[in-house]
Amino acid sequence: MDYQKILNEVYEEVKGIKEKGKVADYIPELSLVANDNFAMALRTVDNRLYTIGESKKQFSTQSISKLFTLTMAINIEGKTLWKRVGKEPAGTSFNSLIQLESENGVPRNPFINSGALVVSDIILSEYENGKESILKFIRELCNCENINFDEKVAKSEAETGYRNVALANFIKDFNNLDNEPKDVLDFYFHQCSIAMSCEELTAATLFLANQGYNPITAKRITSESRTKRLNSILLTCGTYDAAGDFAFRVGLPSKSGVGGGIVAIMPHQFVISVWSPGLDYHGNSLLGLKALELFTEKTDISIF
Amino acid sequence: MDYQKILNEVYEEVKGIKEKGKVADYIPELSLVANDNFAMALRTVDNRLYTIGESKKQFSTQSISKLFTLTMAINIEGKTLWKRVGKEPAGTSFNSLIQLESENGVPRNPFINSGALVVSDIILSEYENGKESILKFIRELCNCENINFDEKVAKSEAETGYRNVALANFIKDFNNLDNEPKDVLDFYFHQCSIAMSCEELTAATLFLANQGYNPITAKRITSESRTKRLNSILLTCGTYDAAGDFAFRVGLPSKSGVGGGIVAIMPHQFVISVWSPGLDYHGNSLLGLKALELFTEKTDISIF
Amino acid sequence: MDYQKILNEVYEEVKGIKEKGKVADYIPELSLVANDNFAMALRTVDNRLYTIGESKKQFSTQSISKLFTLTMAINIEGKTLWKRVGKEPAGTSFNSLIQLESENGVPRNPFINSGALVVSDIILSEYENGKESILKFIRELCNCENINFDEKVAKSEAETGYRNVALANFIKDFNNLDNEPKDVLDFYFHQCSIAMSCEELTAATLFLANQGYNPITAKRITSESRTKRLNSILLTCGTYDAAGDFAFRVGLPSKSGVGGGIVAIMPHQFVISVWSPGLDYHGNSLLGLKALELFTEKTDISIF
Amino acid sequence: MDYQKILNEVYEEVKGIKEKGKVADYIPELSLVANDNFAMALRTVDNRLYTIGESKKQFSTQSISKLFTLTMAINIEGKTLWKRVGKEPAGTSFNSLIQLESENGVPRNPFINSGALVVSDIILSEYENGKESILKFIRELCNCENINFDEKVAKSEAETGYRNVALANFIKDFNNLDNEPKDVLDFYFHQCSIAMSCEELTAATLFLANQGYNPITAKRITSESRTKRLNSILLTCGTYDAAGDFAFRVGLPSKSGVGGGIVAIMPHQFVISVWSPGLDYHGNSLLGLKALELFTEKTDISIF
Repeated sequence: MDYQKILNEVYEEVKGIKEKGKVADYIPELSLVANDNFAMALRTVDNRLYTIGESKKQFSTQSISKLFTLTMAINIEGKTLWKRVGKEPAGTSFNSLIQLESENGVPRNPFINSGALVVSDIILSEYENGKESILKFIRELCNCENINFDEKVAKSEAETGYRNVALANFIKDFNNLDNEPKDVLDFYFHQCSIAMSCEELTAATLFLANQGYNPITAKRITSESRTKRLNSILLTCGTYDAAGDFAFRVGLPSKSGVGGGIVAIMPHQFVISVWSPGLDYHGNSLLGLKALELFTEKTDISIF
Repeated sequence: MDYQKILNEVYEEVKGIKEKGKVADYIPELSLVANDNFAMALRTVDNRLYTIGESKKQFSTQSISKLFTLTMAINIEGKTLWKRVGKEPAGTSFNSLIQLESENGVPRNPFINSGALVVSDIILSEYENGKESILKFIRELCNCENINFDEKVAKSEAETGYRNVALANFIKDFNNLDNEPKDVLDFYFHQCSIAMSCEELTAATLFLANQGYNPITAKRITSESRTKRLNSILLTCGTYDAAGDFAFRVGLPSKSGVGGGIVAIMPHQFVISVWSPGLDYHGNSLLGLKALELFTEKTDISIF
Repeated sequence: MDYQKILNEVYEEVKGIKEKGKVADYIPELSLVANDNFAMALRTVDNRLYTIGESKKQFSTQSISKLFTLTMAINIEGKTLWKRVGKEPAGTSFNSLIQLESENGVPRNPFINSGALVVSDIILSEYENGKESILKFIRELCNCENINFDEKVAKSEAETGYRNVALANFIKDFNNLDNEPKDVLDFYFHQCSIAMSCEELTAATLFLANQGYNPITAKRITSESRTKRLNSILLTCGTYDAAGDFAFRVGLPSKSGVGGGIVAIMPHQFVISVWSPGLDYHGNSLLGLKALELFTEKTDISIF
Repeated sequence: MDYQKILNEVYEEVKGIKEKGKVADYIPELSLVANDNFAMALRTVDNRLYTIGESKKQFSTQSISKLFTLTMAINIEGKTLWKRVGKEPAGTSFNSLIQLESENGVPRNPFINSGALVVSDIILSEYENGKESILKFIRELCNCENINFDEKVAKSEAETGYRNVALANFIKDFNNLDNEPKDVLDFYFHQCSIAMSCEELTAATLFLANQGYNPITAKRITSESRTKRLNSILLTCGTYDAAGDFAFRVGLPSKSGVGGGIVAIMPHQFVISVWSPGLDYHGNSLLGLKALELFTEKTDISIF
């Protein structure tokens, strides 16, 4: 299939769309990003790369980073991880708070904020320097050195992230954090601030399309069985309250972030990433979702 | 792949399991079914059939029937269907009630009871004789005549189904039913009582593995695009509160019923059904889920 | 104190208010009542009566009738009543549904609809003819014969009361109704349709201001201790979601109905009733509440 | 009435009760208090004092202190206070969290923790030194100098009060705190740690039984109208989830704390306080509630 041609077509169609969504403004530093940025990258399991737009420009990965910390946590904890965090879709974010209360501080899945805080806690307990460990993990995944925290973004989120402070303290109250909330939050805010480009993202997630084996660095990242399971959680929980709609419209396991990035996995074939900072109602990139939908329509590709 | 050999192996392993779950007892008539029943059937898109156990014995499809009514409703309503029912996982059944209230009577998806009632309402409004229409639809799907309501089961559920009466009246109060609750409930209780065997189920659902085209009867049931979407809803919403766990352990779009049946779809390849009346905590067949998990482990088959 | 003078003053002030609230329209028959009706009546424990406006005109008591059925149920069940219904304020009506689910079908208090349905069930189980028994009870209380159901209102509510049908079936599903939901609902819809005038209401509730003893008929209605408790429930639960605001502004145990009536108790001194059909946001009579607030300000009367 | 005789009788009856409840242990420092402490004090509006037990021994007032901060906040803000905090009973504590979310960070009343945090915020914004201001206010109320924070208790609560940290950050996220959560929490934890004896409590709250005028110091504390309203909020919201039960059994406006203290108001007559550290399921003093119930039974006193 001529992926480059299809990316070009998608780009042309998306360029014409007036409504671009709204750049996240609850983190002041994120609101400064220009809304006309757009990039896509597709990388096949034999490491061929197709791109369009600003595919080398780094953006704030935000929740996409939860994919990497979850992979680390699964490798650390194995099945016991699922005693501290569920693997079921959360329903609305409104429900997720009620759920935390009614299910004794066990978050419904690792991709809602409360779940990601528990995952952060696991990494903090495992490594002497948690923040270094996540950078090192991603750098090795994508075989690139310039993966870093954006300290301005991390600071901006720490100064305004009252809701995340609330969540961490709730979970601690239920004894589902081993570390102090402030340490878990410091790790979490930094993790979310990691900046990556679309090209880097496709490299770092290629193992998910390749049964856990990273073809770029010739290293096994996680087992084949765990890879399938990571993909299943991406599909059912990876895109905020819109997992059902995403599966319906795109049909690929995906992870999105409020920085406007999305990465999607077609098992055995490729990963595709897209970046456009304007968000829809659910916090997913508006044009990013549209671009993925166009892409899967044109290619007739879907896991279903 | 030697599917028969694998079914045999799964059967041997499952036979040895002591804990069989608990037969549904909230519908008195269902509680009479013997818990040692077990059957599996696998049917490939080129209509080869592999079976084990009592694969010709009919059981109460219960919620599996929602798959057929949803297909009918999508064909009737097209995209406007999604204004009356969502397509997002519901979280816990506890939340689904709160959700109905906070989202003005629009059920979160067509597979929770409230959503299935809205789907029933659509069919009732379309056909002069709703109950005949669903029987006719399924008979044509599986090319078999002896698909019928189990009137004893329907009556048993009508006499004890206070919660479903409550749901239908709530939805009516929100103006999301066009027909009277009692008529919608009569259709719904009958639909759930439809009896089918594992073999019949694989025939009736084969179009879902074959892009909407029924190879047995050489008829298009629904479009390729709608078929993908049906499968995506099965994956994210098809197995009660356990959709995430099901995707994680089985990795196939599936629909279960409290009669102990489950049907799962491997797109482009086959459908597989299993029946064992004992249920787990979530209302899914305990040994049925186990059997599907063993099957996908042994075959290494998954959409992920 | 010159009660008549104060009623006159209140009437003059209230007449000048433009905003009269909205007559209940969810029961079609109720929406036909003219919004310029206004009446007040005050009856002292030595049976002196003061009135203003259309104090002899009957209106639909609606939820005020729950006060009479609760008195009957307390006399039937004694303390065991509180195993089937709570005596705590319900928070919002939204919460009351969640609460019914999380507390296994035990309504939070006897004045929310779910609680009144349980109370109705108790009366139905006790008397051969439940509907006659409530009419007889109220007729004896006020020493007047023309207390009747308004069959048009009862029918109107039965035809449109889907939410109450839902509630009754939920409670039945939790095994907290002994009778069939349809019978409980028939009793409930009739009870709510009872028509009374302001004067009749003050007579029928005078025992609440007089330690359980009806001075008009020289009969004990319930014990002194139960009378205090009835008043405490009126104060904490008697006025829908606005019990706190009512206690804050009026400071008397009160019961309101969506027919626009309110009755309030000043223990040891008097009962006061008011009728004005237009309702506020919470379903309480807008001018009725205003009139009671003016009355307690002018008289400096309050239980606090 | 011979109050001393009745206190003696109540004491004798309560002494014989084996089940004493459980001393609060979620604040480590509180758990060290011996469970056999018991005290009562009654002070009439003409400042006669009746006591039994350890009525001069100070204990941790905890939530009782919210009564004093609410009085301060009403005097500071007047009616605008009710835009930032409601005055309705909260239903269950479980619901109060949902409510905070669904009502945009406006706590349902000033006596649940979230509401008390908003009240604390108001005091912090008004006074240069918030912590000194509350001590000064209470010292003047009871005309006694030795009212102080228990720094050990405040520190103990600060170290383990993750849920309160969560609440403060949630409310801040909804923009309903002007100060930083950590400052509000520091004030709040100190306020709760204030130690008072039963005798001191009756002196400090005597204005509530005397229309806002403190007869001991001959000072007006708040207006007559605000006093009635404070009492109404005490009755509907003062005793955690058990306000309805408290009104039913005791029939007086009351405020309780997890230190085991309760203070109750009989308008125009007296205030009565009781201390027994063992708590019931709702967090109210088990023997304290029992003692008040016996007292009101014996005296036949009630606002109803």
